[in-house]
Amino acid sequence: MSPGSLRIVGLGPGDPRWITPEVATALAEASDLVGYAPYLARLAPRAGQRVHASDNRVELERARLALGLAREGRAVVVVSGGDPGVFAMAAAVFEAVEHGDPAWRALDITVAPGISAMQAAAARLGAPLGHDFCAISLSDNLKPWPLVAKRLRAAAEGDFVIALYNPASRSRAEPIHAAFAILRALKAGATPVVFARAIGRDDESVAITSLAAADPAHADMSTLVIIGSSETRLVERPGTPPFIYTPRGAGGPR
Amino acid sequence: MSPGSLRIVGLGPGDPRWITPEVATALAEASDLVGYAPYLARLAPRAGQRVHASDNRVELERARLALGLAREGRAVVVVSGGDPGVFAMAAAVFEAVEHGDPAWRALDITVAPGISAMQAAAARLGAPLGHDFCAISLSDNLKPWPLVAKRLRAAAEGDFVIALYNPASRSRAEPIHAAFAILRALKAGATPVVFARAIGRDDESVAITSLAAADPAHADMSTLVIIGSSETRLVERPGTPPFIYTPRGAGGPR
Repeated sequence: MSPGSLRIVGLGPGDPRWITPEVATALAEASDLVGYAPYLARLAPRAGQRVHASDNRVELERARLALGLAREGRAVVVVSGGDPGVFAMAAAVFEAVEHGDPAWRALDITVAPGISAMQAAAARLGAPLGHDFCAISLSDNLKPWPLVAKRLRAAAEGDFVIALYNPASRSRAEPIHAAFAILRALKAGATPVVFARAIGRDDESVAITSLAAADPAHADMSTLVIIGSSETRLVERPGTPPFIYTPRGAGGPR
Repeated sequence: MSPGSLRIVGLGPGDPRWITPEVATALAEASDLVGYAPYLARLAPRAGQRVHASDNRVELERARLALGLAREGRAVVVVSGGDPGVFAMAAAVFEAVEHGDPAWRALDITVAPGISAMQAAAARLGAPLGHDFCAISLSDNLKPWPLVAKRLRAAAEGDFVIALYNPASRSRAEPIHAAFAILRALKAGATPVVFARAIGRDDESVAITSLAAADPAHADMSTLVIIGSSETRLVERPGTPPFIYTPRGAGGPR
Protein backbone atom coordinates (compact mmCIF):
# COMPACT_ATOMS: atom_id res chain seq x y z
CA MET A 1 0.00 0.00 0.00
CA SER A 2 1.54 3.30 -1.10
CA PRO A 3 1.26 6.17 1.33
CA GLY A 4 -1.79 8.23 0.60
CA SER A 5 -2.26 11.95 0.91
CA LEU A 6 -5.01 14.42 1.68
CA ARG A 7 -4.95 17.95 0.26
CA ILE A 8 -7.68 20.31 1.44
CA VAL A 9 -7.95 23.01 -1.22
CA GLY A 10 -9.97 26.19 -1.86
CA LEU A 11 -11.30 27.15 -5.29
CA GLY A 12 -12.09 30.74 -4.30
CA PRO A 13 -15.57 32.20 -4.72
CA GLY A 14 -16.37 31.24 -8.31
CA ASP A 15 -14.13 32.83 -10.91
CA PRO A 16 -11.49 30.31 -12.06
CA ARG A 17 -8.95 33.14 -12.26
CA TRP A 18 -8.89 33.02 -8.45
CA ILE A 19 -7.70 29.37 -8.32
CA THR A 20 -4.06 29.45 -7.23
CA PRO A 21 -1.39 27.42 -9.06
CA GLU A 22 -0.90 25.40 -5.86
CA VAL A 23 -4.56 24.35 -5.93
CA ALA A 24 -4.51 23.70 -9.68
CA THR A 25 -1.53 21.35 -9.23
CA ALA A 26 -3.25 19.47 -6.40
CA LEU A 27 -6.38 19.04 -8.51
CA ALA A 28 -4.34 17.74 -11.46
CA GLU A 29 -2.47 15.20 -9.31
CA ALA A 30 -5.49 13.85 -7.41
CA SER A 31 -6.75 10.32 -7.79
CA ASP A 32 -9.92 11.20 -5.86
CA LEU A 33 -11.88 14.46 -5.64
CA VAL A 34 -14.18 14.80 -2.63
CA GLY A 35 -16.56 17.68 -2.01
CA TYR A 36 -19.93 19.35 -1.97
CA ALA A 37 -21.48 18.71 -5.38
CA PRO A 38 -21.72 22.35 -6.61
CA TYR A 39 -17.99 22.90 -5.98
CA LEU A 40 -17.03 19.70 -7.82
CA ALA A 41 -19.28 20.79 -10.70
CA ARG A 42 -16.91 23.71 -11.26
CA LEU A 43 -14.09 21.27 -12.15
CA ALA A 44 -13.33 19.23 -15.26
CA PRO A 45 -11.99 15.95 -13.85
CA ARG A 46 -9.43 14.19 -16.01
CA ALA A 47 -9.88 10.59 -17.16
CA GLY A 48 -9.39 8.16 -14.30
CA GLN A 49 -10.14 10.58 -11.48
CA ARG A 50 -12.82 9.41 -9.10
CA VAL A 51 -15.33 12.05 -8.06
CA HIS A 52 -17.14 11.74 -4.72
CA ALA A 53 -19.86 14.37 -4.54
CA SER A 54 -21.90 14.92 -1.40
CA ASP A 55 -24.72 17.05 -0.10
CA ASN A 56 -24.41 20.18 2.00
CA ARG A 57 -24.20 19.93 5.82
CA VAL A 58 -22.49 16.55 5.87
CA GLU A 59 -18.99 17.93 6.37
CA LEU A 60 -17.85 15.35 8.93
CA GLU A 61 -19.05 12.40 6.83
CA ARG A 62 -17.29 13.88 3.83
CA ALA A 63 -14.10 14.38 5.87
CA ARG A 64 -14.16 10.78 7.10
CA LEU A 65 -14.66 9.48 3.56
CA ALA A 66 -11.65 11.49 2.40
CA LEU A 67 -9.49 10.33 5.31
CA GLY A 68 -10.45 6.71 4.68
CA LEU A 69 -9.49 7.00 1.02
CA ALA A 70 -6.14 8.59 1.90
CA ARG A 71 -5.54 5.78 4.39
CA GLU A 72 -6.08 3.31 1.53
CA GLY A 73 -3.22 5.02 -0.31
CA ARG A 74 -5.22 7.31 -2.59
CA ALA A 75 -4.17 10.86 -3.53
CA VAL A 76 -7.25 12.62 -2.20
CA VAL A 77 -8.21 16.25 -2.69
CA VAL A 78 -11.03 17.72 -0.61
CA VAL A 79 -12.51 20.64 -2.55
CA SER A 80 -13.91 23.71 -0.77
CA GLY A 81 -15.25 26.94 -2.12
CA GLY A 82 -13.43 30.06 -0.95
CA ASP A 83 -10.61 29.38 1.50
CA PRO A 84 -10.90 25.91 3.07
CA GLY A 85 -9.67 27.41 6.36
CA VAL A 86 -12.46 30.03 6.60
CA PHE A 87 -15.89 28.56 7.47
CA ALA A 88 -15.17 25.61 5.17
CA MET A 89 -13.83 22.05 5.03
CA ALA A 90 -10.43 22.26 6.76
CA ALA A 91 -11.87 22.49 10.30
CA ALA A 92 -14.17 19.54 9.56
CA VAL A 93 -11.24 17.40 8.43
CA PHE A 94 -9.18 18.13 11.56
CA GLU A 95 -12.23 17.53 13.75
CA ALA A 96 -12.62 14.14 12.07
CA VAL A 97 -8.91 13.43 12.60
CA GLU A 98 -9.09 14.32 16.30
CA HIS A 99 -12.06 12.06 16.99
CA GLY A 100 -11.37 9.30 14.46
CA ASP A 101 -8.98 6.44 13.63
CA PRO A 102 -5.63 7.20 15.36
CA ALA A 103 -3.87 6.12 12.14
CA TRP A 104 -5.31 9.20 10.43
CA ARG A 105 -2.95 11.40 12.49
CA ALA A 106 0.04 9.96 10.63
CA LEU A 107 -1.37 10.77 7.18
CA ASP A 108 0.18 13.39 4.91
CA ILE A 109 -2.49 16.10 5.30
CA THR A 110 -1.98 19.64 3.98
CA VAL A 111 -4.13 22.69 3.32
CA ALA A 112 -3.91 24.97 0.26
CA PRO A 113 -5.45 28.38 0.96
CA GLY A 114 -7.85 30.14 -1.40
CA ILE A 115 -9.53 33.51 -1.87
CA SER A 116 -12.38 33.76 0.64
CA ALA A 117 -15.72 35.40 -0.18
CA MET A 118 -15.03 38.50 1.92
CA GLN A 119 -11.82 39.17 0.00
CA ALA A 120 -13.50 38.86 -3.39
CA ALA A 121 -16.36 41.07 -2.24
CA ALA A 122 -13.95 43.63 -0.79
CA ALA A 123 -11.99 43.73 -4.04
CA ARG A 124 -15.15 44.52 -6.00
CA LEU A 125 -16.04 47.39 -3.66
CA GLY A 126 -12.70 49.07 -3.00
CA ALA A 127 -11.07 48.28 0.34
CA PRO A 128 -13.77 47.93 3.02
CA LEU A 129 -11.55 45.47 4.95
CA GLY A 130 -8.65 47.92 4.83
CA HIS A 131 -8.47 48.06 8.60
CA ASP A 132 -9.20 45.80 11.59
CA PHE A 133 -12.09 43.45 10.88
CA CYS A 134 -14.00 40.38 12.10
CA ALA A 135 -15.48 37.46 10.22
CA ILE A 136 -18.57 35.90 11.79
CA SER A 137 -20.69 33.03 10.52
CA LEU A 138 -24.40 33.32 11.24
CA SER A 139 -24.96 29.63 10.64
CA ASP A 140 -26.59 28.47 13.85
CA ASN A 141 -26.75 24.75 13.19
CA LEU A 142 -23.36 24.30 14.86
CA LYS A 143 -23.27 26.94 17.56
CA PRO A 144 -25.75 28.45 20.00
CA TRP A 145 -27.26 31.81 19.06
CA PRO A 146 -26.16 33.48 22.35
CA LEU A 147 -22.53 32.97 21.25
CA VAL A 148 -23.26 34.56 17.87
CA ALA A 149 -25.00 37.46 19.60
CA LYS A 150 -22.09 37.93 22.01
CA ARG A 151 -19.67 38.10 19.11
CA LEU A 152 -21.79 40.59 17.20
CA ARG A 153 -21.92 42.85 20.26
CA ALA A 154 -18.16 42.54 20.79
CA ALA A 155 -17.52 43.31 17.11
CA ALA A 156 -19.67 46.43 17.36
CA GLU A 157 -18.08 47.54 20.64
CA GLY A 158 -14.62 47.08 19.14
CA ASP A 159 -15.72 49.12 16.08
CA PHE A 160 -14.50 46.41 13.72
CA VAL A 161 -15.55 46.13 10.12
CA ILE A 162 -17.73 43.00 10.13
CA ALA A 163 -17.99 40.34 7.42
CA LEU A 164 -21.04 38.11 7.91
CA TYR A 165 -20.88 34.66 6.33
CA ASN A 166 -23.90 32.37 5.91
CA PRO A 167 -26.43 35.13 6.65
CA ALA A 168 -29.38 32.99 5.61
CA SER A 169 -30.32 29.64 4.19
CA ARG A 170 -33.37 28.17 2.54
CA SER A 171 -34.63 26.98 5.93
CA ARG A 172 -33.83 29.98 8.13
CA ALA A 173 -34.09 33.72 7.64
CA GLU A 174 -34.10 34.78 11.31
CA PRO A 175 -30.36 35.07 12.08
CA ILE A 176 -29.67 37.96 9.73
CA HIS A 177 -32.69 39.88 11.05
CA ALA A 178 -31.57 39.26 14.64
CA ALA A 179 -28.01 40.26 13.75
CA PHE A 180 -29.13 43.55 12.24
CA ALA A 181 -31.26 44.28 15.31
CA ILE A 182 -28.20 43.84 17.54
CA LEU A 183 -25.94 45.95 15.32
CA ARG A 184 -28.49 48.75 14.87
CA ALA A 185 -28.65 49.18 18.64
CA LEU A 186 -24.88 49.64 18.85
CA LYS A 187 -23.74 51.30 15.61
CA ALA A 188 -24.61 54.48 13.72
CA GLY A 189 -27.44 54.25 11.22
CA ALA A 190 -25.25 55.80 8.53
CA THR A 191 -22.73 52.94 8.73
CA PRO A 192 -22.17 51.59 5.19
CA VAL A 193 -23.57 48.10 4.55
CA VAL A 194 -22.97 45.94 1.50
CA PHE A 195 -24.77 42.86 0.27
CA ALA A 196 -22.32 41.10 -2.08
CA ARG A 197 -23.98 38.21 -3.88
CA ALA A 198 -22.39 35.43 -5.95
CA ILE A 199 -19.15 37.38 -6.49
CA GLY A 200 -17.15 35.91 -9.35
CA ARG A 201 -20.16 34.10 -10.79
CA ASP A 202 -22.30 35.09 -13.78
CA ASP A 203 -25.10 36.36 -11.55
CA GLU A 204 -22.82 38.51 -9.38
CA SER A 205 -24.42 41.57 -7.79
CA VAL A 206 -23.52 44.19 -5.21
CA ALA A 207 -25.93 46.43 -3.28
CA ILE A 208 -24.63 49.34 -1.20
CA THR A 209 -26.81 50.79 1.54
CA SER A 210 -26.65 51.89 5.18
CA LEU A 211 -27.31 50.09 8.44
CA ALA A 212 -30.48 52.15 8.96
CA ALA A 213 -31.82 51.54 5.45
CA ALA A 214 -30.69 47.96 4.86
CA ASP A 215 -33.32 45.26 4.41
CA PRO A 216 -31.80 42.11 5.92
CA ALA A 217 -34.10 40.02 3.74
CA HIS A 218 -31.82 41.07 0.88
CA ALA A 219 -29.31 38.42 2.06
CA ASP A 220 -29.65 34.87 0.78
CA MET A 221 -27.39 31.84 1.07
CA SER A 222 -25.07 33.17 -1.67
CA THR A 223 -24.62 36.56 -0.01
CA LEU A 224 -21.70 37.93 1.98
CA VAL A 225 -22.63 40.95 4.09
CA ILE A 226 -20.08 43.62 5.04
CA ILE A 227 -20.88 46.20 7.72
CA GLY A 228 -18.47 49.09 8.08
CA SER A 229 -16.66 50.48 11.09
CA SER A 230 -17.20 54.09 12.14
CA GLU A 231 -14.34 55.01 9.76
CA THR A 232 -15.61 53.22 6.63
CA ARG A 233 -16.24 55.73 3.84
CA LEU A 234 -17.79 56.03 0.39
CA VAL A 235 -15.95 57.76 -2.46
CA GLU A 236 -18.57 58.91 -4.95
CA ARG A 237 -17.83 58.53 -8.66
CA PRO A 238 -19.51 59.90 -11.77
CA GLY A 239 -21.84 57.35 -13.37
CA THR A 240 -20.79 54.30 -11.37
CA PRO A 241 -21.28 53.01 -7.83
CA PRO A 242 -18.99 54.54 -5.20
CA PHE A 243 -15.81 52.98 -3.93
CA ILE A 244 -16.01 51.86 -0.29
CA TYR A 245 -12.92 51.77 1.86
CA THR A 246 -11.80 51.80 5.47
CA PRO A 247 -8.78 54.05 6.00
CA ARG A 248 -5.55 52.59 7.30
CA GLY A 249 -5.68 54.75 10.39
CA ALA A 250 -7.98 56.88 12.47
CA GLY A 251 -7.77 60.65 12.12
CA GLY A 252 -7.72 61.27 8.38
CA PRO A 253 -5.00 61.10 5.75
CA ARG A 254 -1.32 61.71 6.40
CA MET B 1 -4.23 60.12 -24.54
CA SER B 2 -5.49 56.55 -24.20
CA PRO B 3 -7.44 55.75 -21.04
CA GLY B 4 -5.15 54.43 -18.36
CA SER B 5 -5.88 51.81 -15.74
CA LEU B 6 -4.87 50.98 -12.20
CA ARG B 7 -4.86 47.38 -10.93
CA ILE B 8 -4.10 46.87 -7.22
CA VAL B 9 -2.89 43.29 -6.89
CA GLY B 10 -1.72 40.93 -4.14
CA LEU B 11 1.17 38.50 -4.57
CA GLY B 12 0.31 36.46 -1.48
CA PRO B 13 2.83 35.93 1.31
CA GLY B 14 5.89 34.76 -0.64
CA ASP B 15 5.41 31.47 -2.48
CA PRO B 16 4.75 32.14 -6.19
CA ARG B 17 2.30 29.21 -6.22
CA TRP B 18 -0.07 31.53 -4.33
CA ILE B 19 -0.18 34.15 -7.10
CA THR B 20 -3.61 33.87 -8.73
CA PRO B 21 -4.00 33.76 -12.53
CA GLU B 22 -5.87 37.08 -12.31
CA VAL B 23 -2.84 38.72 -10.71
CA ALA B 24 -0.40 37.03 -13.10
CA THR B 25 -2.36 38.42 -16.07
CA ALA B 26 -2.40 41.93 -14.60
CA LEU B 27 1.37 41.78 -14.04
CA ALA B 28 1.96 40.59 -17.61
CA GLU B 29 -0.18 43.37 -19.10
CA ALA B 30 1.23 46.24 -17.03
CA SER B 31 3.23 49.08 -18.52
CA ASP B 32 4.23 50.26 -15.03
CA LEU B 33 4.78 48.31 -11.81
CA VAL B 34 4.57 50.34 -8.59
CA GLY B 35 5.29 49.01 -5.10
CA TYR B 36 7.41 48.53 -2.03
CA ALA B 37 10.84 47.42 -3.25
CA PRO B 38 10.92 43.92 -1.65
CA TYR B 39 7.62 42.98 -3.30
CA LEU B 40 8.77 44.18 -6.73
CA ALA B 41 11.98 42.19 -6.21
CA ARG B 42 9.88 39.02 -6.29
CA LEU B 43 8.88 39.74 -9.90
CA ALA B 44 10.72 39.35 -13.21
CA PRO B 45 9.59 42.41 -15.21
CA ARG B 46 9.44 41.92 -18.95
CA ALA B 47 11.34 44.16 -21.35
CA GLY B 48 9.77 47.60 -21.58
CA GLN B 49 7.99 47.52 -18.23
CA ARG B 50 8.81 50.45 -15.99
CA VAL B 51 9.44 49.59 -12.35
CA HIS B 52 8.79 52.21 -9.66
CA ALA B 53 10.14 50.89 -6.34
CA SER B 54 9.58 52.78 -3.11
CA ASP B 55 10.40 52.54 0.57
CA ASN B 56 8.14 51.24 3.30
CA ARG B 57 5.70 53.62 5.06
CA VAL B 58 5.16 55.89 2.05
CA GLU B 59 1.89 54.27 0.96
CA LEU B 60 0.07 57.50 0.12
CA GLU B 61 2.96 58.86 -1.97
CA ARG B 62 3.14 55.54 -3.78
CA ALA B 63 -0.63 55.58 -4.36
CA ARG B 64 -0.50 59.13 -5.78
CA LEU B 65 2.37 58.20 -8.10
CA ALA B 66 0.36 55.24 -9.41
CA LEU B 67 -2.79 57.34 -9.89
CA GLY B 68 -0.83 60.01 -11.72
CA LEU B 69 0.65 57.44 -14.08
CA ALA B 70 -2.77 55.93 -14.76
CA ARG B 71 -4.10 59.43 -15.46
CA GLU B 72 -1.35 59.80 -18.07
CA GLY B 73 -2.76 56.74 -19.83
CA ARG B 74 -0.40 54.08 -18.47
CA ALA B 75 -1.46 50.53 -17.53
CA VAL B 76 -0.38 50.66 -13.91
CA VAL B 77 -0.22 47.76 -11.46
CA VAL B 78 0.28 48.49 -7.76
CA VAL B 79 1.89 45.45 -6.17
CA SER B 80 1.13 44.43 -2.58
CA GLY B 81 2.22 41.44 -0.58
CA GLY B 82 -0.59 39.24 0.73
CA ASP B 83 -4.07 40.55 -0.12
CA PRO B 84 -4.01 44.23 -1.13
CA GLY B 85 -7.32 44.68 0.73
CA VAL B 86 -6.00 43.46 4.11
CA PHE B 87 -3.60 45.91 5.81
CA ALA B 88 -2.05 46.69 2.45
CA MET B 89 -2.10 49.06 -0.52
CA ALA B 90 -5.78 49.11 -1.58
CA ALA B 91 -6.94 51.32 1.31
CA ALA B 92 -4.07 53.74 0.64
CA VAL B 93 -5.06 54.06 -3.02
CA PHE B 94 -8.71 54.82 -2.23
CA GLU B 95 -7.64 57.28 0.46
CA ALA B 96 -5.51 59.04 -2.16
CA VAL B 97 -8.46 59.03 -4.58
CA GLU B 98 -10.81 60.53 -2.00
CA HIS B 99 -8.48 63.39 -1.12
CA GLY B 100 -6.77 63.89 -4.49
CA ASP B 101 -7.39 65.08 -8.06
CA PRO B 102 -11.14 64.72 -8.78
CA ALA B 103 -10.23 63.27 -12.19
CA TRP B 104 -8.81 60.20 -10.42
CA ARG B 105 -12.38 59.13 -9.52
CA ALA B 106 -13.13 58.48 -13.18
CA LEU B 107 -10.13 56.18 -13.66
CA ASP B 108 -10.52 52.45 -14.29
CA ILE B 109 -9.39 51.18 -10.85
CA THR B 110 -9.79 47.54 -9.80
CA VAL B 111 -8.48 45.28 -7.04
CA ALA B 112 -7.30 41.69 -7.46
CA PRO B 113 -7.37 39.80 -4.16
CA GLY B 114 -4.53 37.61 -2.90
CA ILE B 115 -3.77 35.12 -0.16
CA SER B 116 -3.24 37.05 3.08
CA ALA B 117 -0.61 36.09 5.67
CA MET B 118 -3.17 34.74 8.16
CA GLN B 119 -4.54 32.35 5.54
CA ALA B 120 -1.12 31.01 4.62
CA ALA B 121 -0.19 30.63 8.28
CA ALA B 122 -3.49 28.91 9.04
CA ALA B 123 -2.98 26.48 6.16
CA ARG B 124 0.42 25.46 7.54
CA LEU B 125 -1.04 24.80 11.00
CA GLY B 126 -4.35 23.08 10.27
CA ALA B 127 -7.44 25.26 10.56
CA PRO B 128 -7.00 27.74 13.43
CA LEU B 129 -9.29 30.26 11.67
CA GLY B 130 -11.95 27.60 11.24
CA HIS B 131 -14.46 29.63 13.20
CA ASP B 132 -15.24 33.31 13.91
CA PHE B 133 -12.06 35.40 13.94
CA CYS B 134 -10.67 38.94 13.99
CA ALA B 135 -7.71 40.48 12.22
CA ILE B 136 -5.99 43.33 14.04
CA SER B 137 -2.94 45.33 13.01
CA LEU B 138 -0.68 46.39 15.86
CA SER B 139 0.98 49.04 13.75
CA ASP B 140 0.50 52.21 15.77
CA ASN B 141 1.92 54.75 13.36
CA LEU B 142 -1.55 55.28 11.89
CA LYS B 143 -3.92 54.77 14.80
CA PRO B 144 -3.92 55.59 18.48
CA TRP B 145 -3.02 52.79 20.88
CA PRO B 146 -6.26 53.15 22.90
CA LEU B 147 -8.18 52.05 19.79
CA VAL B 148 -5.91 49.01 19.38
CA ALA B 149 -6.37 48.19 23.06
CA LYS B 150 -10.15 48.54 22.81
CA ARG B 151 -10.22 46.14 19.87
CA LEU B 152 -8.01 43.59 21.62
CA ARG B 153 -10.35 43.64 24.63
CA ALA B 154 -13.42 43.31 22.41
CA ALA B 155 -11.81 40.41 20.52
CA ALA B 156 -11.09 38.64 23.82
CA GLU B 157 -14.56 39.33 25.19
CA GLY B 158 -16.12 37.99 22.00
CA ASP B 159 -13.90 34.88 22.24
CA PHE B 160 -12.72 35.32 18.66
CA VAL B 161 -9.64 33.69 17.24
CA ILE B 162 -7.28 36.65 16.79
CA ALA B 163 -4.77 37.19 13.98
CA LEU B 164 -2.28 39.94 14.81
CA TYR B 165 -0.59 41.67 11.87
CA ASN B 166 2.47 43.93 12.17
CA PRO B 167 3.25 42.79 15.72
CA ALA B 168 6.62 44.55 15.77
CA SER B 169 8.98 46.55 13.64
CA ARG B 170 12.62 47.46 13.79
CA SER B 171 11.78 50.62 15.68
CA ARG B 172 9.09 49.40 18.09
CA ALA B 173 8.72 46.26 20.18
CA GLU B 174 6.23 47.57 22.74
CA PRO B 175 2.87 46.92 21.02
CA ILE B 176 3.11 43.14 21.03
CA HIS B 177 4.12 43.13 24.71
CA ALA B 178 1.21 45.44 25.56
CA ALA B 179 -1.15 43.30 23.46
CA PHE B 180 -0.16 40.11 25.28
CA ALA B 181 -0.63 41.85 28.64
CA ILE B 182 -4.20 42.76 27.66
CA LEU B 183 -5.02 39.30 26.32
CA ARG B 184 -3.48 37.47 29.30
CA ALA B 185 -5.78 39.37 31.64
CA LEU B 186 -8.85 38.23 29.68
CA LYS B 187 -8.11 34.78 28.22
CA ALA B 188 -7.01 31.41 29.64
CA GLY B 189 -3.28 30.81 29.93
CA ALA B 190 -3.64 27.52 28.04
CA THR B 191 -4.99 29.27 24.92
CA PRO B 192 -2.91 28.14 21.91
CA VAL B 193 -0.65 30.80 20.42
CA VAL B 194 1.30 30.56 17.18
CA PHE B 195 4.14 32.67 15.83
CA ALA B 196 4.17 32.09 12.07
CA ARG B 197 7.20 33.69 10.46
CA ALA B 198 7.94 34.28 6.76
CA ILE B 199 5.38 31.68 5.61
CA GLY B 200 6.02 30.69 1.99
CA ARG B 201 9.58 31.96 2.05
CA ASP B 202 12.80 29.96 2.37
CA ASP B 203 13.22 30.92 6.01
CA GLU B 204 9.66 29.98 7.00
CA SER B 205 9.16 28.91 10.62
CA VAL B 206 6.28 28.17 12.95
CA ALA B 207 6.37 28.11 16.76
CA ILE B 208 3.43 26.75 18.75
CA THR B 209 3.03 27.72 22.39
CA SER B 210 0.40 28.95 24.86
CA LEU B 211 -0.70 32.41 25.93
CA ALA B 212 0.89 31.85 29.38
CA ALA B 213 4.19 30.58 27.99
CA ALA B 214 4.56 32.77 24.90
CA ASP B 215 7.43 35.23 24.72
CA PRO B 216 6.08 38.22 22.74
CA ALA B 217 9.67 39.10 21.80
CA HIS B 218 9.47 36.09 19.48
CA ALA B 219 7.48 38.24 17.01
CA ASP B 220 9.37 40.34 14.48
CA MET B 221 8.20 42.35 11.48
CA SER B 222 7.85 39.17 9.37
CA THR B 223 5.67 37.38 11.94
CA LEU B 224 1.94 36.78 11.97
CA VAL B 225 0.62 35.87 15.43
CA ILE B 226 -2.49 33.75 15.91
CA ILE B 227 -4.17 33.49 19.33
CA GLY B 228 -6.87 30.87 19.71
CA SER B 229 -10.42 31.12 20.99
CA SER B 230 -11.52 29.05 23.98
CA GLU B 231 -12.39 26.29 21.50
CA THR B 232 -9.09 26.16 19.57
CA ARG B 233 -7.50 22.73 19.94
CA LEU B 234 -4.26 20.85 19.26
CA VAL B 235 -4.30 17.41 17.62
CA GLU B 236 -1.08 15.69 18.59
CA ARG B 237 0.76 13.65 15.97
CA PRO B 238 3.64 11.17 16.16
CA GLY B 239 6.97 12.76 15.27
CA THR B 240 5.65 16.06 13.89
CA PRO B 241 4.13 19.24 15.32
CA PRO B 242 0.43 19.03 16.19
CA PHE B 243 -2.37 20.24 13.98
CA ILE B 244 -4.20 23.27 15.37
CA TYR B 245 -7.83 23.87 14.54
CA THR B 246 -10.90 25.70 15.78
CA PRO B 247 -14.03 23.54 15.52
CA ARG B 248 -16.92 24.68 13.36
CA GLY B 249 -19.24 24.80 16.34
CA ALA B 250 -19.29 24.92 20.10
CA GLY B 251 -20.12 21.75 21.99
CA GLY B 252 -18.03 19.04 20.33
CA PRO B 253 -18.37 17.01 17.15
CA ARG B 254 -21.64 16.13 15.49
